[in-house]
Amino acid sequence: MNGADRLCDVLLANDVNVCFANPGTSEMHFVAALDRKPEMRCVLGLFEGVVTAAADGYARMADKPAATLLHLGPGLANGLANLHNARRARTPMVNVVGDHATYHLGYDAPLTSDIESLARPMSHWVGRATSAANIRAKAEEAYIAAATKPGISTLILPADAAWGEVEEEPLQRVTLPSRPEVAPEALRAAVAALRSGRKTAIFLGGRATRADTLEIAGKIAAGTGAALFTERAPRWQRGAGRVFPKPVPYNIELAVAALKEFETAILIGGRAPVSFFAYPGKPGRLLPEGCEVIELAGIEHDLQHVLDMLADELGTRHLGAAQTGAFTARELAAPTGELTPAAISVAVARALPEGAIIADESITSAGRFLELAPHMAPHDHLPLTGGSIGIGIPLAAGAAVACPDRKVVALQADGSGMYTVQGLWTQARENLDVLTIVFSNRGYSILKGEMRNVGVNDFGHNARRMLEIEDPTLDWCSLAKGMGVEAARAETAEEFTKLLDAGLSRRGPYLIEACLA
Amino acid sequence: MNGADRLCDVLLANDVNVCFANPGTSEMHFVAALDRKPEMRCVLGLFEGVVTAAADGYARMADKPAATLLHLGPGLANGLANLHNARRARTPMVNVVGDHATYHLGYDAPLTSDIESLARPMSHWVGRATSAANIRAKAEEAYIAAATKPGISTLILPADAAWGEVEEEPLQRVTLPSRPEVAPEALRAAVAALRSGRKTAIFLGGRATRADTLEIAGKIAAGTGAALFTERAPRWQRGAGRVFPKPVPYNIELAVAALKEFETAILIGGRAPVSFFAYPGKPGRLLPEGCEVIELAGIEHDLQHVLDMLADELGTRHLGAAQTGAFTARELAAPTGELTPAAISVAVARALPEGAIIADESITSAGRFLELAPHMAPHDHLPLTGGSIGIGIPLAAGAAVACPDRKVVALQADGSGMYTVQGLWTQARENLDVLTIVFSNRGYSILKGEMRNVGVNDFGHNARRMLEIEDPTLDWCSLAKGMGVEAARAETAEEFTKLLDAGLSRRGPYLIEACLA
Repeated sequence: MNGADRLCDVLLANDVNVCFANPGTSEMHFVAALDRKPEMRCVLGLFEGVVTAAADGYARMADKPAATLLHLGPGLANGLANLHNARRARTPMVNVVGDHATYHLGYDAPLTSDIESLARPMSHWVGRATSAANIRAKAEEAYIAAATKPGISTLILPADAAWGEVEEEPLQRVTLPSRPEVAPEALRAAVAALRSGRKTAIFLGGRATRADTLEIAGKIAAGTGAALFTERAPRWQRGAGRVFPKPVPYNIELAVAALKEFETAILIGGRAPVSFFAYPGKPGRLLPEGCEVIELAGIEHDLQHVLDMLADELGTRHLGAAQTGAFTARELAAPTGELTPAAISVAVARALPEGAIIADESITSAGRFLELAPHMAPHDHLPLTGGSIGIGIPLAAGAAVACPDRKVVALQADGSGMYTVQGLWTQARENLDVLTIVFSNRGYSILKGEMRNVGVNDFGHNARRMLEIEDPTLDWCSLAKGMGVEAARAETAEEFTKLLDAGLSRRGPYLIEACLA
Repeated sequence: MNGADRLCDVLLANDVNVCFANPGTSEMHFVAALDRKPEMRCVLGLFEGVVTAAADGYARMADKPAATLLHLGPGLANGLANLHNARRARTPMVNVVGDHATYHLGYDAPLTSDIESLARPMSHWVGRATSAANIRAKAEEAYIAAATKPGISTLILPADAAWGEVEEEPLQRVTLPSRPEVAPEALRAAVAALRSGRKTAIFLGGRATRADTLEIAGKIAAGTGAALFTERAPRWQRGAGRVFPKPVPYNIELAVAALKEFETAILIGGRAPVSFFAYPGKPGRLLPEGCEVIELAGIEHDLQHVLDMLADELGTRHLGAAQTGAFTARELAAPTGELTPAAISVAVARALPEGAIIADESITSAGRFLELAPHMAPHDHLPLTGGSIGIGIPLAAGAAVACPDRKVVALQADGSGMYTVQGLWTQARENLDVLTIVFSNRGYSILKGEMRNVGVNDFGHNARRMLEIEDPTLDWCSLAKGMGVEAARAETAEEFTKLLDAGLSRRGPYLIEACLA
């Protein structure tokens, strides 16, 4: 057997059995090896940004890494923007990036580039197999790093390491190191703060935004008066009956206002919030001056265990379920008339089936979702974690690969959607149960707002040419059709609701182009 | 005025007056500055891979750099694969990459990343403005590097450098340093080799593949018996009446065979050829053992001057024009029947208008073009220089921006075309005179060949799923329509010829989906 076979075997031995891929010549031995392993599911993306975002969506829902297969430096480069998002989500992922044969690198052949330099900014672990003999060690190291940090591992696979021969040997699943314990003094400080009566905010992230851990956090909040926030969690279980932490607003004034009263911040998987961007004369840190920050637990800890310890210390376990109101469809009137983002939010809130997964790249369009989320049927919400646009369509595809029995609803801004529009083809190829809703506002609306933030209200020719996506208008139904996804257009709330019902009641990919008023 | 205004002024003072852009929040002050400069033409790409490839196509044809505007690390990352190609083409380009305000970087806000690490592998020069005060110096340095190395300059522009105030000051065009002289001993060695009667190959690259320099090289070859080769030149002027150097074949056996007789290689803008990929047991260097390599001139030299000096030394100036045969349409019978790549090549060869620009990302489909090229009307040929797929559609767009009066014909493989399919929208937005011919073979055909090269002839499920682009079939007419480009489908040679004539006789973007038999 060769090194490529060994790599596949290590992945499979560790239950990594989905490979999102876009291969090239230097990976042909790996492709041949994958072809000998029918237990590995290979999912083709027609662009590497699709590959990495799909791997992100998959791992957020499957709670285990997928592999990706990327072709040399340029193939990795194409996947980097969504690796950036996955890095911010702390998604476990094992990227396999092919490289030229070791002895070929010195020739500086056309496709040669410094893969390590490209990989490091978006990876938590970067390594290189130097021969077939050390592929097992490197692959296991990559897997362990991905699973325990957790995060992005990028393993560079030179062609000669892939084609080199190795002896067969039995493989077993690696033993993951145990998670670190939190510092006792941090736990004591958190308990003291929560008992002190000081205004305290708890920032939840990572695993702490799942329903079970939120329930524990909700009781802590109920018992102590603390406020719960979430700081761009990768997967947030929301909906009726679930504890609902507040997200830190994107808008800097709103964020500062939301946090101005707090004297103590306790971080449990979340980070101390900072502004997304800098603005002249405005703060970077969003917590008020003098606010004490207690770094109780990071993403590397067992956050459920940390919350359990905190609840035990505080004696909040006995409290009743900290629920929000249950959803009933009749609470919300069906939207009518103009097709606005709010109308879409209401329509989706009414119709969302229990257990649905929302892949959210709605950017400026879905403010009302947030408000309605506690009243929707219980669902998973996957947001844009790193701010790099172009994740939504393939993120939805990856989530659907992980959860074939759940409906995935992608809330997709049009400008962002164009970045990885090729992901629709993967949805069609794999017959994934994804309903994509495109908010067609025909512009980079968030940037129009930001232009006003810098004092420009009257846009001239150049600004309009860069911030508007008109002349020509994108025709999303044709784009979807071109990639084998059925689609229809809605121009009123009534039309949208009808298409939404149709889209939710069928299986397989479907796209609604919501032409916003 | 602010730093962003200063940056625009420096670019304009140096005749950089086209900016291919996809901005974000951190670049809003730069967008506002561009909006105050109507003499700067801003061209929006709906994805950064479009932006960088368009800047490449523009500069190859305009012989001067365009600027690009990219949003932070992820925006740069999206543009890197085509920067890789531009780097290999030695295309002059000035990338402006926004970054967070300097003081904001320490907060590690969601969109923060190590931009320098991302930029270096694909740039010849990387710099960062540290305040508004040093933007002029940094921008001039970036421009000089781009114009003289020549190559890719990446200038990182923190938001506070963009919004910081500077005094107005008069700007003038920078003085470029003079090009280096070639080493006299290299010139003597080249002259001696060409006079010696030894089998000698001249490798032309960069500026040396334009018609005027080719004419000098052709006379040198005619007078000395040397063979002319080109090593992936960025812009190759071909067609009837022009000297036609041979390209080094991609296939390694063919390449070795083509070069096996040579005792001396003289590099004039080209490099000593190496194989694109490594294959077990096959050579990396393509020149035979013992072949002497004379590095006469690199891309940084004045290659026309070098060829002139060589011609003077060798006394070949007096020779008659070293022409190939003139093209006459009747030499080629109109293709009929099955729509094959060869039929398309013949149809285009017959119909190509003089002065056309071919943006070639046909990969496996256009072998016959090469053979027919000397018999076509004189034209410019822009190939894929770095092997990173996804350049063709936006490369054509950029060339059309540079040369609005010339027809651009994009020969586009389907798999590669999907990488930056968004470029069609830019063609429509700018009403660019581009005829795109998609070779729809519904697979990564080059990889199917490479799989056979590694000994796999029977593809299993996983290999087919990764190498074939079927199930569903892409519908390029719908994709084009979705982005505002008119399109039609041809399934026979006759249908193709008819659509080709229609496409060539109109102005503005048009796409032919050639469904290959």
